[in-house]
Amino acid sequence: MDIAAYMADVGRQARQAATAIARSSTATRNQALLATAAALDSARDALAEANRKDLDNGRRNGLEPAMLDRLELTPERIDGMIEGLRQVAGLPDPIGAITDMTYRPSGIQVGKMRVPLGVIGIIYESRPNVTVEAASLCLKSGNATILRGGSEAIHSNQAIAECLNAGLREVGLPEASVQVIRITDRAAVGEMITMPEYVDVIVPRGGKGLIERISRDARVPVIKHLDGVCHVYVDAHADPEKALKVAVNAKTQRYGTCNTMETLLVDEEIADDILPLLAGAFREHEVELRGCDASRGIVPDMVAATEQDWHEEYLAPVLAVRVVAGLDGAIEHINRYSSRHTDSIITENYTRARRFITEVDSSSVMVNASTRFADGFEYGLGAEIGISTDKIHARGPVGLEGLTSQKYVVFGDGHTRG
Amino acid sequence: MDIAAYMADVGRQARQAATAIARSSTATRNQALLATAAALDSARDALAEANRKDLDNGRRNGLEPAMLDRLELTPERIDGMIEGLRQVAGLPDPIGAITDMTYRPSGIQVGKMRVPLGVIGIIYESRPNVTVEAASLCLKSGNATILRGGSEAIHSNQAIAECLNAGLREVGLPEASVQVIRITDRAAVGEMITMPEYVDVIVPRGGKGLIERISRDARVPVIKHLDGVCHVYVDAHADPEKALKVAVNAKTQRYGTCNTMETLLVDEEIADDILPLLAGAFREHEVELRGCDASRGIVPDMVAATEQDWHEEYLAPVLAVRVVAGLDGAIEHINRYSSRHTDSIITENYTRARRFITEVDSSSVMVNASTRFADGFEYGLGAEIGISTDKIHARGPVGLEGLTSQKYVVFGDGHTRG
Repeated sequence: MDIAAYMADVGRQARQAATAIARSSTATRNQALLATAAALDSARDALAEANRKDLDNGRRNGLEPAMLDRLELTPERIDGMIEGLRQVAGLPDPIGAITDMTYRPSGIQVGKMRVPLGVIGIIYESRPNVTVEAASLCLKSGNATILRGGSEAIHSNQAIAECLNAGLREVGLPEASVQVIRITDRAAVGEMITMPEYVDVIVPRGGKGLIERISRDARVPVIKHLDGVCHVYVDAHADPEKALKVAVNAKTQRYGTCNTMETLLVDEEIADDILPLLAGAFREHEVELRGCDASRGIVPDMVAATEQDWHEEYLAPVLAVRVVAGLDGAIEHINRYSSRHTDSIITENYTRARRFITEVDSSSVMVNASTRFADGFEYGLGAEIGISTDKIHARGPVGLEGLTSQKYVVFGDGHTRG
Repeated sequence: MDIAAYMADVGRQARQAATAIARSSTATRNQALLATAAALDSARDALAEANRKDLDNGRRNGLEPAMLDRLELTPERIDGMIEGLRQVAGLPDPIGAITDMTYRPSGIQVGKMRVPLGVIGIIYESRPNVTVEAASLCLKSGNATILRGGSEAIHSNQAIAECLNAGLREVGLPEASVQVIRITDRAAVGEMITMPEYVDVIVPRGGKGLIERISRDARVPVIKHLDGVCHVYVDAHADPEKALKVAVNAKTQRYGTCNTMETLLVDEEIADDILPLLAGAFREHEVELRGCDASRGIVPDMVAATEQDWHEEYLAPVLAVRVVAGLDGAIEHINRYSSRHTDSIITENYTRARRFITEVDSSSVMVNASTRFADGFEYGLGAEIGISTDKIHARGPVGLEGLTSQKYVVFGDGHTRG
């Protein structure tokens, strides 16, 4: 099979569909989402059947239990996909909004209109519900989508794609508005990320290895999230009760998420008092602590941290702990080791809070709040296609607006430039 | 000389300077701009001397007269640079603005803070005043800059860089906030566009060849402007007087700019009446017309247009002319051949204007206004680093805001996620 030709054909169809979908009304796109929800509900047996094939293949190929778990489409997960579609249908439509319309001295009126990006390529790994999540956000925001899921989920993804296509068909939108790549060969990804004539942006979702590879090879802009090495800094002026509450929540509420705290920084001025309390709390949660020398001087039973620990995204009940020289030490550590995802200061001191907010260069900076809040839903975006650790285009949690752009609109009455 | 090592060193210094400049106050950055203006004013002799060297070398190397002209730093152009610096100092500072701050159901407050991008790489060709223009916009918006001008302007650019460094020194900002690359070897560009650890975005300014090469090879995001194939579509419902005025202005007010009209589209319904008038007006301006068959059926003395003419950015008194089948024909032609820069409809018909605005996928879409208005100053951005034909990050004229990003700020009072 000629993969390049196949992908170019997919791209051409997506580009064409993008024009139709960009022109469609809010109501039409919402109806397509609701029709897809209905189609999923009617296709429960087919979905289970397709998913069973993937699970059987996965077991045969020795997929890890965690991967098999993520691959499984339980009835509850199908319910979740249906509910997700209804929620996206209920979100406000960002497309077409005209803002900042003003008269200029020349007499023309100038404003900005929010428009779809065009064609969005999504590359992801085992979870088949991403197919619905990503496609629904792209559809809602007037974009065509090309989805390339993991080969281990191919049957599940195809079955879901059929429901999406049925939803589109029902409202008269081109089925090519959402295309799921049928080829499992990796070369398909290589093509997809190097055809800027057909794809406007790539959103990779998966492990750091996948995302680094895609970023390196892409010739299309990438909205990416590499990793989450998030910090909580307990300042000398912290309220100890808030410090404990927030630090424990940031680490233990969920271990495997990118906004989980991975390193705890403690101001040297209060380390003697607060570090034993914090260590005690984490011990209760069975979190392994890896401390710097100063930390171990105060709480001796910590494992000795190495330089590598400051870089580590554990995604596990492990926490690096470091005593730092006040706010300056904290900012220096964070701007050096943080993945620029989310960092929080615990302090009652106004000036220190103000400096932390200004000087920490991360996509979310917080005062007296758990890093776990860094999330599209918690921020009120209504949905989230991912969390960007880039600075260009979209930074932090990316909702519908991150899948759009703005063009200038100019109204005149025969105006010419002098 | 080890170019890779030299560029990495430049990058490291820029990254360090970026932290200092991001933290500096609006007043400090404005003072640096004004101090640079004063330094340029005092350095007129040195600037003239350096520029003479470049001009002599240019003549010796057989540089074209147009290139030599762009290279020359006349006293008026130095006045222009000084005035430009004062204007940029007078613009509102985008950095630090916090917007959209709201309480969420969880009790946290979430908003967005505008922040610098970090380090901006500018790659440009012969005009040395770009050194001041680009550096001043980056400085104003809190970014460090690495500038790589053309080898033909190396002495002029170095002399200008000294004034910029003097301005930075005077206010205590690191001189490495603005660095002009001293190596003329092309390999320096290759390094600059492939070091994402030190450079956050590249802004190339120059011919299409340069920009295509950079976009192809860059591993850093590029804010780019490829070309301006702009259209004016004269609809059947156009006011003929406005059509004539706008079309003539869009083509003839300046021939060499990217927002100049390159193709005129005329609705078949009124072509018989209006095309002879338009052709007459262009003939008065000695604009060569290249028409489609239908156009030549009405105005026989046009040159026959080929397929290539619809793609052409003439930047000259040449205009492609095509008769199209109404609004649908116009939109189809534009979305196929336009460079998605700027396109305008001339019509008195509300519904057609509304459809044109929505369905034409260009960075500026206009009704009854000359494409020549597509410009940062005309749009009220105060300044312009370029016009982006991309959709990601910045689209259309890019002002200070295009050189910034937004991070999320979250305020809590010990809030944890449930």
